[in-house]
Amino acid sequence: MTEAYFTGVERIRYEGPDSDTPLAYRWYDPDRMVLGRRMADHLRVAVCYWHSFCWPGSDPFGGGTLDRPWMRAGDPVALAETKMDVAFELFEKLGAPFFTFHDRDVAPEMGSLRETQATFARLTERLQGCIERSGVKLLWGTANLFSHPRYMAGAATNPDPEVFACAAAQVRDALEATHRLGGVNYVLWGGREGYDTLLNTDMARELDQLGRFLTMVVEHKHKIGFTGTILIEPKPMEPTKHQYDHDVATVYGFLKRYGLEREVAVNIEVNHATLAGHSFEHEVATAQALGIFGSIDMNRGDPQNGWDTDQFPNDHVELALPMARILEAGGFTTGGFNFDAKIRRQSVAPDDLLHAHVGGIDTLARALLAGARLVEDGRLRSLRAERYAGWKGDLGQRLLGGLDLAGAADAGLGLDPRPRSGRQEMLENLVNRLV
Amino acid sequence: MTEAYFTGVERIRYEGPDSDTPLAYRWYDPDRMVLGRRMADHLRVAVCYWHSFCWPGSDPFGGGTLDRPWMRAGDPVALAETKMDVAFELFEKLGAPFFTFHDRDVAPEMGSLRETQATFARLTERLQGCIERSGVKLLWGTANLFSHPRYMAGAATNPDPEVFACAAAQVRDALEATHRLGGVNYVLWGGREGYDTLLNTDMARELDQLGRFLTMVVEHKHKIGFTGTILIEPKPMEPTKHQYDHDVATVYGFLKRYGLEREVAVNIEVNHATLAGHSFEHEVATAQALGIFGSIDMNRGDPQNGWDTDQFPNDHVELALPMARILEAGGFTTGGFNFDAKIRRQSVAPDDLLHAHVGGIDTLARALLAGARLVEDGRLRSLRAERYAGWKGDLGQRLLGGLDLAGAADAGLGLDPRPRSGRQEMLENLVNRLV
Amino acid sequence: MTEAYFTGVERIRYEGPDSDTPLAYRWYDPDRMVLGRRMADHLRVAVCYWHSFCWPGSDPFGGGTLDRPWMRAGDPVALAETKMDVAFELFEKLGAPFFTFHDRDVAPEMGSLRETQATFARLTERLQGCIERSGVKLLWGTANLFSHPRYMAGAATNPDPEVFACAAAQVRDALEATHRLGGVNYVLWGGREGYDTLLNTDMARELDQLGRFLTMVVEHKHKIGFTGTILIEPKPMEPTKHQYDHDVATVYGFLKRYGLEREVAVNIEVNHATLAGHSFEHEVATAQALGIFGSIDMNRGDPQNGWDTDQFPNDHVELALPMARILEAGGFTTGGFNFDAKIRRQSVAPDDLLHAHVGGIDTLARALLAGARLVEDGRLRSLRAERYAGWKGDLGQRLLGGLDLAGAADAGLGLDPRPRSGRQEMLENLVNRLV
Amino acid sequence: MTEAYFTGVERIRYEGPDSDTPLAYRWYDPDRMVLGRRMADHLRVAVCYWHSFCWPGSDPFGGGTLDRPWMRAGDPVALAETKMDVAFELFEKLGAPFFTFHDRDVAPEMGSLRETQATFARLTERLQGCIERSGVKLLWGTANLFSHPRYMAGAATNPDPEVFACAAAQVRDALEATHRLGGVNYVLWGGREGYDTLLNTDMARELDQLGRFLTMVVEHKHKIGFTGTILIEPKPMEPTKHQYDHDVATVYGFLKRYGLEREVAVNIEVNHATLAGHSFEHEVATAQALGIFGSIDMNRGDPQNGWDTDQFPNDHVELALPMARILEAGGFTTGGFNFDAKIRRQSVAPDDLLHAHVGGIDTLARALLAGARLVEDGRLRSLRAERYAGWKGDLGQRLLGGLDLAGAADAGLGLDPRPRSGRQEMLENLVNRLV
Ligand SMILES: [Co+2]
Ligand SMILES: [Co+2]
Ligand SMILES: [Co+2]
Ligand SMILES: [Co+2]
Ligand SMILES: [Co+2]
Ligand SMILES: [Co+2]
Ligand SMILES: [Co+2]
Ligand SMILES: [Co+2]
Repeated sequence: MTEAYFTGVERIRYEGPDSDTPLAYRWYDPDRMVLGRRMADHLRVAVCYWHSFCWPGSDPFGGGTLDRPWMRAGDPVALAETKMDVAFELFEKLGAPFFTFHDRDVAPEMGSLRETQATFARLTERLQGCIERSGVKLLWGTANLFSHPRYMAGAATNPDPEVFACAAAQVRDALEATHRLGGVNYVLWGGREGYDTLLNTDMARELDQLGRFLTMVVEHKHKIGFTGTILIEPKPMEPTKHQYDHDVATVYGFLKRYGLEREVAVNIEVNHATLAGHSFEHEVATAQALGIFGSIDMNRGDPQNGWDTDQFPNDHVELALPMARILEAGGFTTGGFNFDAKIRRQSVAPDDLLHAHVGGIDTLARALLAGARLVEDGRLRSLRAERYAGWKGDLGQRLLGGLDLAGAADAGLGLDPRPRSGRQEMLENLVNRLV
Repeated sequence: MTEAYFTGVERIRYEGPDSDTPLAYRWYDPDRMVLGRRMADHLRVAVCYWHSFCWPGSDPFGGGTLDRPWMRAGDPVALAETKMDVAFELFEKLGAPFFTFHDRDVAPEMGSLRETQATFARLTERLQGCIERSGVKLLWGTANLFSHPRYMAGAATNPDPEVFACAAAQVRDALEATHRLGGVNYVLWGGREGYDTLLNTDMARELDQLGRFLTMVVEHKHKIGFTGTILIEPKPMEPTKHQYDHDVATVYGFLKRYGLEREVAVNIEVNHATLAGHSFEHEVATAQALGIFGSIDMNRGDPQNGWDTDQFPNDHVELALPMARILEAGGFTTGGFNFDAKIRRQSVAPDDLLHAHVGGIDTLARALLAGARLVEDGRLRSLRAERYAGWKGDLGQRLLGGLDLAGAADAGLGLDPRPRSGRQEMLENLVNRLV
Repeated sequence: MTEAYFTGVERIRYEGPDSDTPLAYRWYDPDRMVLGRRMADHLRVAVCYWHSFCWPGSDPFGGGTLDRPWMRAGDPVALAETKMDVAFELFEKLGAPFFTFHDRDVAPEMGSLRETQATFARLTERLQGCIERSGVKLLWGTANLFSHPRYMAGAATNPDPEVFACAAAQVRDALEATHRLGGVNYVLWGGREGYDTLLNTDMARELDQLGRFLTMVVEHKHKIGFTGTILIEPKPMEPTKHQYDHDVATVYGFLKRYGLEREVAVNIEVNHATLAGHSFEHEVATAQALGIFGSIDMNRGDPQNGWDTDQFPNDHVELALPMARILEAGGFTTGGFNFDAKIRRQSVAPDDLLHAHVGGIDTLARALLAGARLVEDGRLRSLRAERYAGWKGDLGQRLLGGLDLAGAADAGLGLDPRPRSGRQEMLENLVNRLV
Repeated sequence: MTEAYFTGVERIRYEGPDSDTPLAYRWYDPDRMVLGRRMADHLRVAVCYWHSFCWPGSDPFGGGTLDRPWMRAGDPVALAETKMDVAFELFEKLGAPFFTFHDRDVAPEMGSLRETQATFARLTERLQGCIERSGVKLLWGTANLFSHPRYMAGAATNPDPEVFACAAAQVRDALEATHRLGGVNYVLWGGREGYDTLLNTDMARELDQLGRFLTMVVEHKHKIGFTGTILIEPKPMEPTKHQYDHDVATVYGFLKRYGLEREVAVNIEVNHATLAGHSFEHEVATAQALGIFGSIDMNRGDPQNGWDTDQFPNDHVELALPMARILEAGGFTTGGFNFDAKIRRQSVAPDDLLHAHVGGIDTLARALLAGARLVEDGRLRSLRAERYAGWKGDLGQRLLGGLDLAGAADAGLGLDPRPRSGRQEMLENLVNRLV
């Protein structure tokens, strides 16, 4: 490793809520115990290779604005090495316990798949060294099956089986690398598994291809002894008009269809939730209700723009309730909070990357404390339970158990239940007293 | 039956595309054969009691504008009878083969559930008479589980089991009435089965309640020998913030979860599709791919407004592709096109109801002809099949059958598949030549 | 005045942030000085007659759930008097300094416009008594030109000039009553001033009618010596497909067109901002930039639903920046924060109205304190100013003053300005340290 | 000019509606007279250099898919010349009467602004040759003030005056080139004139900068004797969070503010209308009502996706009413229909560009014929006029003229106008009989 990229900055430290140091944590105090667990072990924060080191600041109307040394002309492998060093410099300066990566983030596309494979092998070996030296762990790996033109019409769902095979080659390698590097999850995001027009699309066939692919991945996981979680990341649209992994409920139906609902969980991204017309909390609640909650891609969208803005989170109030929900269900097992977030295109100073992550991590920490207060207070939980208390009574039990429709109907005919207040405003105030 | 409400109008007739008579069909020619079937038998058009006879023209900012005699003060049963007569006058003047109704559309809420039940029994008997006299058949019946305040927090998903029992009473009666009246489907729309806030909601419990309720309904259907189809109508939101029957894919997952995917199909509403962020064609394609296609609530939404505008359809070009898709899959079995559509609040003249339906039926007929041309032409189908032809080859078959991930990966490593054009613009032009 | 409606509750008191009393203020401490002004004088909180006393809990799919004594059968004037007493009971128990009302909120529609006018006169006299007795002041009055069927196609923009004249009658009376009652603003919300379809609409003509109407109102204001502010409340859609007062920028153009931009300001509603695709802060900033900022209708929308949910605000973090912006520009003159917000349909307990307002007022107070911290800190302001500092230099001054395009172009040709970071994440963190 | 790029295709010919030739016009018959004018002179179709020759098929998640010879490595000027030859090959094979371009489409960014200027001068000279040889005319030119990183924070609205000066340099040259090349309009699209966050933005100042810039452009236009129209192209967002030229009504207010409403008109893009929450017809109607209608960027968006998809139009029914509206107002003066539309990323075959344009032009031609039928029929116009007929009567005239609010109010008090049907469904059917 050569000289520092983030010059003039040492490891970010916790200084407490009153600190006015721009690059210090005010809320993220990794060893602080929250509900019996270290804050760091609750949050399992991961920094994302992709957004922070591979995106040049381009958008659909303009080229890159971020002048990174490793994006200039040069030997692609040497540039990838520089990038890796700077990435670990960031991970370490932030004190982030985890990172996440796509195969193509750490190793470039070469002339052929075989060459690309070889380069990936060499660079993941180097990655292993960085992991060992730094102590930063791998939350999950994944394969980029969306950037190369060969995937323009899908990877597993491509009309051309050769593309399916290429995707298999990438995923096999990325999954095995993840296993080798000690990763605790493996993610599939199907950015091209969808359609631009139904005119040329056979949806039933494509769903079967996707089910087949996922089945292969699950079988391979068991074969190689990978004990991490396989995660699907739902997203409704973008880059295609429609993606099959639309939202959590859709993914659940897909998993049930192919008998995979006990093998695969979801990686919920905040901005993908809102693009699908759901609140983030809704997606978490749905995954919990359906038993497929896995991990989180933490970011935020713009409520007025209709694309994936992938901004860093900055409102702990908004995140307090989802956090409480996750805590109540016992927190993460293999999952964590991965910052699938990018700085704005105008944030061209190197330290903008630091500000973004420090702010994001602090927002999570503050939301964790607020969520823990909600859980400890317990009133939300008990008021909710009380609302359904009638179901523990005789009628409730018989409705769930013995009665058929006629029996239930006969029971109903003599009743005239009175509306009870849902207490929404009172509950909102209760939350506000605690966050 | 007393005097006519739609005065000066006789039964609407087919006069052909060149007719300029405002109240004549230009495309709907019921006996015309299309792909070997009568046009009327393809479309199975149904008029909706609810929108056309029960909605007073109110909206959230203003009261009723539609001055209907049966909405004035008076004996509720007598008013319901007048309404029924006018409804059948419309059905017959339109030559509509079917109608659909909620229990509360034909029989008002009375002082208690028992009285309401008795009134419903009497009025459905009268309805039976209208059906027999007119020959207009019942496409489906349903129970209104959303208007009465008792359902404000859900029917099957209510925190109060007594409300579940009341809902069972209504559904038992509505299902049995549908059976008795010769209905060929029974619909459940869960307008209150959702939440306004997650703060007071136990989603897992509510989903189980809903699964339980639906199971009871399916069992009762078999018990009474009803051979029609049980249909769920998806809608993402409105009146609540979130409804559990969000869209077709979500309903599929729900049915799989409770083992009902072979017992229940979906009634897809156009405007509900767009509120969920999908095209109507997408919802049809999804239902077909998942094997749960049932029936259609035909209307259109406003692309710029975010609520259920339930307008009459008026663009046959937009409907040609969904129509072709339905035709290719063999058309409806028990389903049909129900106009879940209402005139605009400013359409206060009685004959506006006629214009709306004549235009809607003609739009469907014209779309049917366009859809049939697409099917007969066959190029869309064959070009689509050709696009996936590679999957019939050796590699394709082995990927779907014998190979595991490693085998697929090894096959992929030596390949470099070339992108093939998706031909979207060419296909759009092909469609345009035919519609 | 008869017995209390909100029984068991006395006047809500300030108890400080640590209070856990559900019906106490934790942040709203009216006499606390903030930036040199009493908190109450900053916020100028108003309670809204309309939502809290006239809306029965109905929605497009269900009837009223709120069982209010004054909504039952009875003599309409006596019921209006009961309603008025309960309204002032709420205003006083909350300690709200202001209220707002539509003519039809306090006096019902009678058989004819003349009778309605007479009833309105009598009831506003009674209202005057309530105002004097209670000390609660009138922030603004307005006329309901959207509920009666005569306005279904517009009030000032109606195709029928008779409707325009009826609207004039209502507005004259409402404006004069507002003047008489000591109101400090008069609001026009054009809920029906728009179109459902362009097919029957002459937009240029309707805009001229609307301009004419507004001119008449402004002239009448001067004639009667009303020194309050005339306010237009923008809303993009709902109840109609499109309303002419779409958003702040559109209203500005309209005012400029009819030469009224110095006579009329805007009443910005939070939920109307988001329905128009803007953030609330954007609408405030736009009104300030264009010189037409007037008053606020405080509420919040649901980010996933596409209609006007008019919920009470509950996130002070979200409101801190708009609040800082209002403070920096000197705060309200005649305007204030009117709660154009309604409890949820399921909030059927009388005290839900209290919880809603207490939470809303506290949210505003907490946002005020956060906004004041941002203003006092001053860094946001100075960093923003610094960003544009170049415009104070020679080139900047010449570009704004002397140079023509050719001169500017010649100056530009030799330059190669370097992108400077926009610092968005750093600024977001700065805000988070202060809110 | 070297060999053909679109091999095997000659000039596209009109073959009539029954033709099944994929690359023939079925509706576009340039010399056919429609309402007394050649079809070509009505439509004034322009092909867009930008989308068809400069976009490589990239999207935010993947690189270019379109393997164009002129996008490979090589001398940038030589590549620009190849591109120009292929562009004119397309223009000519389509028989398109016009094209449009950005400065950077025909001449690449070089090392410095001065070099870029020189290259642009040389290549526009070559362009002049192409124009003269081919007879294809220039509908409008424009300057790309959004792709280069220097414009990331705005061009005219940049916090750095040097960037404003660079923008002036580009616009001066692009405007003069447009003049020299015989262009009949000049367009400004402010893709970066907006903000990503209000935190660092001084909106009032930026609006003034933008007003200043536009004033300079208008003055320069007059100075050089350019008699074409200056056009602003509204777009609400993308690439930035918010753009100042949000929609037609906002642009009107901006023009009024800076006294430019008689100097500048709007170039309305279909997909920008829908991104702003408006129908395309609404934007046309608004521009006509406000007197600033100029030209059209023809394309279509995806109703379910929230970004600018810029697809080719393919539904003539949807376009019939806007077309009728344009025809009724006398059609274009200097404006035309520019295809600001791109093929889909998967449309990688060279002839996909031809299919796209042939389909788009035919859709316009078919919509023109439908629009002309609507105009000739005249019923829409006369029914609309009739609806407002009351305003010609005594009361109407006095309301618009002599009466003040009190006079109008007194007139209104004795009235009880009856709601008249808006006839929306009947009018929709009337349209459907004609399109
Ligand atoms: Co993600
Ligand atoms: Co994302
Ligand atoms: Co429906
Ligand atoms: Co609907
Ligand atoms: Co309001
Ligand atoms: Co509102
Ligand atoms: Co454009
Ligand atoms: Co565009």
